Amino acid sequence: MPSASETGTDLTSRNPYGHGNGVSDFLSNVSRFKIIESTLREGEQFANAFFDTQKKIEIARALDEFGVDYIELTNPCASEQSRLDCEAICKLGLKAKILTHIRCHMDDARIAVATGVDGVDVMIGTSSLMRQHSHGKDIEYIKKTAIEVINFVKSQGIEVRFSTEDSFRSDLVDLLSIYSAVDQVGVNRVGVADTIGCASPRQVYELIRVLRGVVSCDIETHFHDDAGCAIANAYCALEAGATHIDTSVLGIGERNGITPLGGLMARMVATHPEYVKSKYRLDKIKDIEDLVAEAVEINIPFNNYITGFCAFTHKAGIHAKAILNDPSTYEIINPADFGMTRYVHFASRLTGWNAIRSRAQQLNISMTDKQYKECTAKIKALADIRPIAIDDADSIIRAYYRNIQSGEDSPLMDLTADEAAQLAAKEKEFGEVASA
Amino acid sequence: MPSASETGTDLTSRNPYGHGNGVSDFLSNVSRFKIIESTLREGEQFANAFFDTQKKIEIARALDEFGVDYIELTNPCASEQSRLDCEAICKLGLKAKILTHIRCHMDDARIAVATGVDGVDVMIGTSSLMRQHSHGKDIEYIKKTAIEVINFVKSQGIEVRFSTEDSFRSDLVDLLSIYSAVDQVGVNRVGVADTIGCASPRQVYELIRVLRGVVSCDIETHFHDDAGCAIANAYCALEAGATHIDTSVLGIGERNGITPLGGLMARMVATHPEYVKSKYRLDKIKDIEDLVAEAVEINIPFNNYITGFCAFTHKAGIHAKAILNDPSTYEIINPADFGMTRYVHFASRLTGWNAIRSRAQQLNISMTDKQYKECTAKIKALADIRPIAIDDADSIIRAYYRNIQSGEDSPLMDLTADEAAQLAAKEKEFGEVASA
Repeated sequence: MPSASETGTDLTSRNPYGHGNGVSDFLSNVSRFKIIESTLREGEQFANAFFDTQKKIEIARALDEFGVDYIELTNPCASEQSRLDCEAICKLGLKAKILTHIRCHMDDARIAVATGVDGVDVMIGTSSLMRQHSHGKDIEYIKKTAIEVINFVKSQGIEVRFSTEDSFRSDLVDLLSIYSAVDQVGVNRVGVADTIGCASPRQVYELIRVLRGVVSCDIETHFHDDAGCAIANAYCALEAGATHIDTSVLGIGERNGITPLGGLMARMVATHPEYVKSKYRLDKIKDIEDLVAEAVEINIPFNNYITGFCAFTHKAGIHAKAILNDPSTYEIINPADFGMTRYVHFASRLTGWNAIRSRAQQLNISMTDKQYKECTAKIKALADIRPIAIDDADSIIRAYYRNIQSGEDSPLMDLTADEAAQLAAKEKEFGEVASA
Repeated sequence: MPSASETGTDLTSRNPYGHGNGVSDFLSNVSRFKIIESTLREGEQFANAFFDTQKKIEIARALDEFGVDYIELTNPCASEQSRLDCEAICKLGLKAKILTHIRCHMDDARIAVATGVDGVDVMIGTSSLMRQHSHGKDIEYIKKTAIEVINFVKSQGIEVRFSTEDSFRSDLVDLLSIYSAVDQVGVNRVGVADTIGCASPRQVYELIRVLRGVVSCDIETHFHDDAGCAIANAYCALEAGATHIDTSVLGIGERNGITPLGGLMARMVATHPEYVKSKYRLDKIKDIEDLVAEAVEINIPFNNYITGFCAFTHKAGIHAKAILNDPSTYEIINPADFGMTRYVHFASRLTGWNAIRSRAQQLNISMTDKQYKECTAKIKALADIRPIAIDDADSIIRAYYRNIQSGEDSPLMDLTADEAAQLAAKEKEFGEVASA
């Protein structure tokens, strides 16, 4: 009798919350979210960041070309140059809306609206710790000030968001009370910020879901990555009804930063490819990351989402075999969507003969399965005594092929006497394993 | 009237799933999980990895000293050297239990148990894609073979785990049927593997929670990071009742790897510090990461959890002010637990005067608040025209202090004529802002 999964073609329909036909969330915005790109605000708080006006303009244009919905800029009150840069970017005529991020204070608000931005992001700390050690204000004061600032910004005909800071260590009743009050005076978005990176995915889901029932405006979320959950938290927030996600290029920001733009794209394209691919120029991610990495003098991490050097490299024998049959076996993201390429590693002790056959065929060398297997055993034998490069593996494949064509037995590679002796011993072992 | 949160001292008790007294999960193992460290198995599948015997032993000893519960090694059938290394590590007499990871096949099992390991991790692909493109077997065959292998390994008096591969794209009914069958023959652990990195946190929570009701054995989980959820998924798995988490140092593994050991520690110490700090030598994380990074020739990512160069660097003015009052305002992780130090950045255009006062006091310079503010305006003015180093800021603080002591007005720094002119203009602007 065929098992349950063998009678249908939908591979995952019976996974809880599975891709495809799984249980879906009524509140979910995963297939219609918006990006508030904050490299020029949160990212400017990164330890290494110093963007001059030209660099800010270059980054803003690149983000606009990528297709982000909003670009958020540093508070124009932070410094005079910050204010001038804000004005300059507003004048570029980008498709993305331009926001600036201010403290919940009328002085800041007046300076912000005068820059020409499309919207103002207002924030204030609401946790007891923040209230005690940062601004020292109580909840009623926060509510009153927030409403004053919101009404002022709205009166200027532009968007306004109100966000709490350190939302996940704030009292739930206080939070909902403030959000409800600002929603009632017509704020465009409320913001929930995991300023210190403590939130866990289910905690995020629960808080946003509750908030979704309290306010009718949009919900923006901002997640720091101190505990490794920034991308996951953004995803869960969208599942619970959040509408906007804050990102920065490579995640740069205070401490080790926030939800990275590229990482968010990896998460979203893996589950909702149509929306992401139709809206954003995914093939621009690498250029944008290179631009920002150079500006802040960092290297792209080896394991960066999408653009890390090994993101699409397959090594283990059984992985390589399946990938060569059907890439989706071990890939949820098509590297071609990002202008990247797949690489099947075939020069290690973990190499399988399917990978070697594939490589030989790329080299226009055709042999029998038995010959591919024997050639693979030789490559594995050498890889077992020292690291080998692709060229080494190619040399062995070519020399092995020449040997079987000519009937002669010439050396497969240039080796030291010691390596040759070790290799001979290894080949004997692998030969025994192969023939066992 | 004081608001709700102001009447109590527990800051977060009313957050859903909040830290402290929030709603707790009956099934949760977040405060009693175990680590299966797989740098020497999954990590060996990383594109750059080649570990010789000495390096494997060095890594195994370091992980043992850190306190991981298990160390998992490459399949001894992968190559003859892999088998010899496995035997060598078993003979080290480590506190950690030694496991090896094999295909679900009697040939592999016989070679594995002969190495002297404490347990064998058996795995087989169960998704339709894996069954079609990898091993080509049906569910009944998988079940039968699994039971044969499990019974054999158990008969040798050592632990045995059975894991499916690509579990999140497998049919739920097939999965539960196989797990239930192996649980009934007494497997020690079942393994759930997100081999391709597609799982989302709530999907993980749901699957593990259902599985927790089906099997009585331990539950191990293995998460790849392709979509940025590896740490979050591990956390949600523990919340749902999983008992063991697979990690590797820096997350190295196939493609861009799995849940990183350091990142998992960041997540767990942020919410359950007592357990993590009592069980693991957190101060060894940096040494272990340096050891592995050097062995596989990669740089520690700039934003690495705990040990990245900016993980504990604070820059924005309001952050710096609060951090100097109470570090927990913006830190969920105490850097000292990991032998790391905090750094409050005070030489940028975002600098606030609290940070400058703190730095001046470190330099044994005491001034009035008005003087600190004026000195800060000068530093911000310079930082607004070019990047400045700590030394530059220190120079300005010292020169400013000398000037007010001596009543003379000497230059604050060596600047080019152009810079001096720009600075004079900026100082004027900042002076106006400061006195406004």
